[in-house]
Amino acid sequence: MSWKDNLIDIAPYVAGEQPDKKDFIKLNANENPYPPSPKVTEVINRFETGCLNKYPDADATPLVRAIADRLGLDCKNIFVGNGSDDVLALAFRAFFNSDKPVLYPDITYSFYPVWCSMLKIPYELIPVDEDFNINAADYKRANGGVIICNPNAPTSIGRDLSFIREILDANPDSVVICDEAYVDFGDQSALPLLKEYPNLAVIQTFSKSRSMAGMRIGFCAAGEELISALRAAKDSYNSYPVDSIAIEAGCASVADEEYFRETISRIISTRDRLTHELRTMGFDVKDSSTNFLFASHPRYKAPEISAFLKTKDIYVRFFNKPRIDNHLRITVGTDNETDALISALKEYIR
Amino acid sequence: MSWKDNLIDIAPYVAGEQPDKKDFIKLNANENPYPPSPKVTEVINRFETGCLNKYPDADATPLVRAIADRLGLDCKNIFVGNGSDDVLALAFRAFFNSDKPVLYPDITYSFYPVWCSMLKIPYELIPVDEDFNINAADYKRANGGVIICNPNAPTSIGRDLSFIREILDANPDSVVICDEAYVDFGDQSALPLLKEYPNLAVIQTFSKSRSMAGMRIGFCAAGEELISALRAAKDSYNSYPVDSIAIEAGCASVADEEYFRETISRIISTRDRLTHELRTMGFDVKDSSTNFLFASHPRYKAPEISAFLKTKDIYVRFFNKPRIDNHLRITVGTDNETDALISALKEYIR
Repeated sequence: MSWKDNLIDIAPYVAGEQPDKKDFIKLNANENPYPPSPKVTEVINRFETGCLNKYPDADATPLVRAIADRLGLDCKNIFVGNGSDDVLALAFRAFFNSDKPVLYPDITYSFYPVWCSMLKIPYELIPVDEDFNINAADYKRANGGVIICNPNAPTSIGRDLSFIREILDANPDSVVICDEAYVDFGDQSALPLLKEYPNLAVIQTFSKSRSMAGMRIGFCAAGEELISALRAAKDSYNSYPVDSIAIEAGCASVADEEYFRETISRIISTRDRLTHELRTMGFDVKDSSTNFLFASHPRYKAPEISAFLKTKDIYVRFFNKPRIDNHLRITVGTDNETDALISALKEYIR
Repeated sequence: MSWKDNLIDIAPYVAGEQPDKKDFIKLNANENPYPPSPKVTEVINRFETGCLNKYPDADATPLVRAIADRLGLDCKNIFVGNGSDDVLALAFRAFFNSDKPVLYPDITYSFYPVWCSMLKIPYELIPVDEDFNINAADYKRANGGVIICNPNAPTSIGRDLSFIREILDANPDSVVICDEAYVDFGDQSALPLLKEYPNLAVIQTFSKSRSMAGMRIGFCAAGEELISALRAAKDSYNSYPVDSIAIEAGCASVADEEYFRETISRIISTRDRLTHELRTMGFDVKDSSTNFLFASHPRYKAPEISAFLKTKDIYVRFFNKPRIDNHLRITVGTDNETDALISALKEYIR
């Protein structure tokens, strides 16, 4: 036996390509093309670093309060973490301790099976239909929890509250997580249902709609019992609190509702224009409730379109996975980036 | 079955008390009493927030390079994470995949058993001797890995390189982690041994000697195989990269060697003065290689001393645990804070 035999044996996650050059158009990570609120800049650039010698507030209390106030909830209904990935991983640990399988769609965020496997949580993939729709009726079966990404990624398809309500009504004995990473781009949030369903957890992020992917802030809104379980899980096994600057920068973002609304409406308007242009070129494009499009073309293969775009320094996301291996996931960029994308695609397809 | 039955059932970690008031002397979390380097302030206050919409560099490449350069190592020998707790948790996952127990002292950092329990890693506690010394000879037995906090916490006792070498020589078939959170305050780092021992991992933090607890930066220096295993573990199960501001602030700290040396030497000088004063008052104080003291008094009970100090708005750490429940762990503060502590103790003991 050598020490090498005890090293982890695991296939690493492959993130969207990050070319090692400048001046390329990055539409492969669903990032917001606009900077964060000027109020965020102000807070960072005036940040008094004299406090950095101290550990951060372990619960990110000021940010918890800011989010709670904005959502009309109490502080005990909010848990803040290092990006929604941190919050989701903790939620899997805190909520899904059952021998029955956790249910989620076969086409969805690729980290759900990773956390299940890490935490040895049994799970069952529920196929989405041919049009990539999630059907609530499929979630009426014995389970140890349900997680629905709504709007879903990478399909971009959002469902309304009656859909979420149907899933909740079918699952009074399971925790139901709504992963709403993209909800601010046009979908209905499940937040109004929190008062009715103590087993509902809504998870959102500052990475997309608030242009703060670089700072790692996400949160869960839920009833007091679920938030307590999240805190217990976090306190007992990790001590990666949100850092002191992120706490203040997050508060500044929440305070600037106007900028938030404005940025989202610009992205939605660009998204709708891009959807129209792609359809005109013959693409099948799902109606998007997110800041990205999910598109395929009847005559051109997705990996080949993606490869061509790379030669134009435009990076989109292609998943080499069953059912979706002829689709592209295209992040909505600025108007200029979108123009460049449209020109390149026209050149390819002409 | 209710959803409540599936919630995590775990006792939360209790951190050092954080009183909800200003104007108290906080000597209970081993924080550095001085601010980070002015270069860190400069980088933060000039940080161009326009990039925050993008995800951080997943590997914290600029900071990896800065640390590698400073230590005279290659980038492939450095892994950066969100504080050394993040790095340690990943190291447990990446290195300790064996049926044999991981060995560590019974009196040491309280998170080791937490990670073992979380990851279902068997472990064996090796008692330190009556004077709280770790004996290398005790680590010559079958194991799935060894972790030594050196200097050790909460005992403050440091051991030299021959001790680490003895442990390494006895364990050619295990990964040996040296947790060096406090090493900059006067102990010998095991870094020079990296070239000889591909199974050695040295883990350090920016939280103590670099006054950056509020930013969450830690790193591992090791041979290429261990670093690859850490990266695989991280990539495959979490996506909590170090945030974009922390990367640049960390680089600025590493660049200011002079400030780093100066701050450490101030703390060491205050530590030595405090050690002398406490001993004059009859305390038994271990020779500290850290930024804190481990002390007990033959006539006064530790919890009572701690309670008295609280009435003076001075917070030190007391552990209600077997073997150390009559000891205090006292962080070395500024000279003024130390004067206040000494006066209060004199009043109590007179």
